[in-house]
Amino acid sequence: MTKLSKKDVLRADQFTPGDIHLILERAATYEAALAVGKELDELRGKVLATLFFEPSTRTRLSFEAAMLRLGGCVLSVSEAKSTSASKGESLHDTIKTVEGYADAIVLRHPEVGAAEVAARATAKPVLNAGDGAGEHPTQSLLDLYTIRKEQGCVDGLTISLVGDLKHGRTVHSLATLLSQYPVSFLFVSPPALRMPREVVERAQAKGISVRETDDLGLALVQSDVVYMTRIQRERFADPVEYDRLKDAYVLTRATLGKAKPSITVMHPLPRVNEISTDVDDLPGAAYFRQSANGVPVRMALLALLLD
Amino acid sequence: MTKLSKKDVLRADQFTPGDIHLILERAATYEAALAVGKELDELRGKVLATLFFEPSTRTRLSFEAAMLRLGGCVLSVSEAKSTSASKGESLHDTIKTVEGYADAIVLRHPEVGAAEVAARATAKPVLNAGDGAGEHPTQSLLDLYTIRKEQGCVDGLTISLVGDLKHGRTVHSLATLLSQYPVSFLFVSPPALRMPREVVERAQAKGISVRETDDLGLALVQSDVVYMTRIQRERFADPVEYDRLKDAYVLTRATLGKAKPSITVMHPLPRVNEISTDVDDLPGAAYFRQSANGVPVRMALLALLLD
Amino acid sequence: MTKLSKKDVLRADQFTPGDIHLILERAATYEAALAVGKELDELRGKVLATLFFEPSTRTRLSFEAAMLRLGGCVLSVSEAKSTSASKGESLHDTIKTVEGYADAIVLRHPEVGAAEVAARATAKPVLNAGDGAGEHPTQSLLDLYTIRKEQGCVDGLTISLVGDLKHGRTVHSLATLLSQYPVSFLFVSPPALRMPREVVERAQAKGISVRETDDLGLALVQSDVVYMTRIQRERFADPVEYDRLKDAYVLTRATLGKAKPSITVMHPLPRVNEISTDVDDLPGAAYFRQSANGVPVRMALLALLLD
Repeated sequence: MTKLSKKDVLRADQFTPGDIHLILERAATYEAALAVGKELDELRGKVLATLFFEPSTRTRLSFEAAMLRLGGCVLSVSEAKSTSASKGESLHDTIKTVEGYADAIVLRHPEVGAAEVAARATAKPVLNAGDGAGEHPTQSLLDLYTIRKEQGCVDGLTISLVGDLKHGRTVHSLATLLSQYPVSFLFVSPPALRMPREVVERAQAKGISVRETDDLGLALVQSDVVYMTRIQRERFADPVEYDRLKDAYVLTRATLGKAKPSITVMHPLPRVNEISTDVDDLPGAAYFRQSANGVPVRMALLALLLD
Repeated sequence: MTKLSKKDVLRADQFTPGDIHLILERAATYEAALAVGKELDELRGKVLATLFFEPSTRTRLSFEAAMLRLGGCVLSVSEAKSTSASKGESLHDTIKTVEGYADAIVLRHPEVGAAEVAARATAKPVLNAGDGAGEHPTQSLLDLYTIRKEQGCVDGLTISLVGDLKHGRTVHSLATLLSQYPVSFLFVSPPALRMPREVVERAQAKGISVRETDDLGLALVQSDVVYMTRIQRERFADPVEYDRLKDAYVLTRATLGKAKPSITVMHPLPRVNEISTDVDDLPGAAYFRQSANGVPVRMALLALLLD
Repeated sequence: MTKLSKKDVLRADQFTPGDIHLILERAATYEAALAVGKELDELRGKVLATLFFEPSTRTRLSFEAAMLRLGGCVLSVSEAKSTSASKGESLHDTIKTVEGYADAIVLRHPEVGAAEVAARATAKPVLNAGDGAGEHPTQSLLDLYTIRKEQGCVDGLTISLVGDLKHGRTVHSLATLLSQYPVSFLFVSPPALRMPREVVERAQAKGISVRETDDLGLALVQSDVVYMTRIQRERFADPVEYDRLKDAYVLTRATLGKAKPSITVMHPLPRVNEISTDVDDLPGAAYFRQSANGVPVRMALLALLLD
């Protein structure tokens, strides 16, 4: 069987076009199997450890569901912080221990670079499920999978990333991954929360058109895909500034009236109020399908790493 | 295969006599299979999510054991409160997400009506494992199953419900479910903790004899089944009143001396001191068997909803 | 199939030589099967409950991995304290309840003797995963398994136990178990943290040579196996005394220069700084292999108790 080019999933920019093709095709196969209730057992007898040093029920369950749907088993640690680490154990030692129990390790950790440390500690596959402000590569893959599925194809799309683009790990990784395709970007944020220059320049270096604006309405009329993220109050030095801006980045059925009928609306979830619930019934409201896509995409990754 | 009349298990009063017959017969089949160690795999490849927004290890493990005993898999969230909900996500959104991972959802939530909200959010089966002071329908089913099994038949029994009948979710639901049968009720409580009038009237409207008393001894001599529940100190405005009453509602081997030899003693557990441990060895002490009955009853529900 | 001489695993001294032979041989068979990725299913359809009243991710995962590797299922309670016990339920009642859900119970509890209480409450196997300052018998078995495997044979070895020998549950149980073999002991500790007299005398009564010293360097030159444990600051009345001593019980690549080339270095983990990380690459650094050995040893116990 064809394999991924690396044994670990650590960063969104690690994937070759061949890797991405392999993952998305495999995910589509699994999604079709799940849809007809077909029982899969490719990973029967295999054990996955999910090691979460900060809580993320959504991501943990998505990985665990992926493993179970392939017939595998799960060792679950949702409260890793309150364990050996609290007795002073290093992450390296924790990983050296867990590799004795499992065939692959999913790690969520508050510190940037933690997944790389873990991958160096073990010959077994490590999957980064978020390392602080760093990377969350499986989220980017499921986002890409969703765009491709909802729009039929990624090439030529105009994609708006909206919200706090400065601090959002999700949008950085997604922009990086999408920069492998001939797309156009609209980065929509308050001036103080603009996309980091290196992300913009990396996209432009690939020949991608990047426009930046603080006007969501303007972006909507041109977008094939709009990817909403949350603006957190605590990011603002001045709470008055937050209150002035927050409503400008809320998507409603009314504001979507100006958009293309075929627009796809995405969100990494959980949402608070960035998307009004009156949007949920629109055919292009893809965020819950996007979340569900995490299962076949992670099934593909686990199968390619473990099979 | 015959199915339940509803896709969700939300309330004790939702079950038709046909549903109840179906569930209890199926549960008896599973109990017999478990007793001889027969391996079942009707739900192989299926995934159950147990989503507990307040802790209840007993109920969570009972549902998870039921799923595992049928060959299925479990996604377990014992600390749902510390998850997306803490980031401001609505229960509706949480359920829309979890339905992407699992084939059915067990929900425990501190708010009355939470299970109905969840059921409306998803087309997949939702099983209410307790919603605050509201309902706990699977507990009532296993109580009914236990009475039928211990006494051979429900019809004609005199059943005492004892303790804090005012606040007890368990006894309200059980009384509702038992009101489908020709039984007699003795409601035994301090005057301030009597059964709500609507529960009494609902039973009487079905032609059931209801007597209320504060004298446990009097009730014991007439009962085929005595169902004990806890009286909590915090329910009393006056602690002196609590201290005066609490010992009157403790079952001991001595107080049971006046009861029928065939009496069945039940308790939803955990007990603190409502039943003295010297009762445990009596043949009619059914509370641990009652707790174990939760597994075949929940197996029956899961199989009927998912198979 | 041959069985263990007792239905429960409660204490290190309960095992007959026949039991130990049976367990270690079976563990070796499983380890070989795991090494070639062979799928085992001897415990398919069986359910293990892991009930942890204090956190120990390492021990919990090791037991759960063992059960899963044999095709069994797991009910996991990593936060047992925040459950029925907090409502005033006795351990006896908790166990009577959990025996209704599972075929065997692993118990970790802060109180000495808790595992014995649990074993008396149920006819199903109870495995003690640590009861306060009491016993941790499966740790001792995996330690013994590791010594045998690393050194080829236990007979005739000189084994140093190092660190806080006064409070260390692990070293007490290991010394007890090793006293069944013709070994020599070196007990290496600060004078205030010496091995309890009863452990020393029990070994001597078996004809085993026991020497005690506070000089780690002296012990190293004579040892075939050195078993490091942690010295905790809180054990010292005088912090100055702690600071004076702590570095004397740290193993480094340099201090190991004086040891036999074939020396085996062990540690129950987690380590803080008792073994310098520059030791990790030495061929005799066995502590991560030791930790991994917990899986086949616990597989052997579960299979022998449940099959």
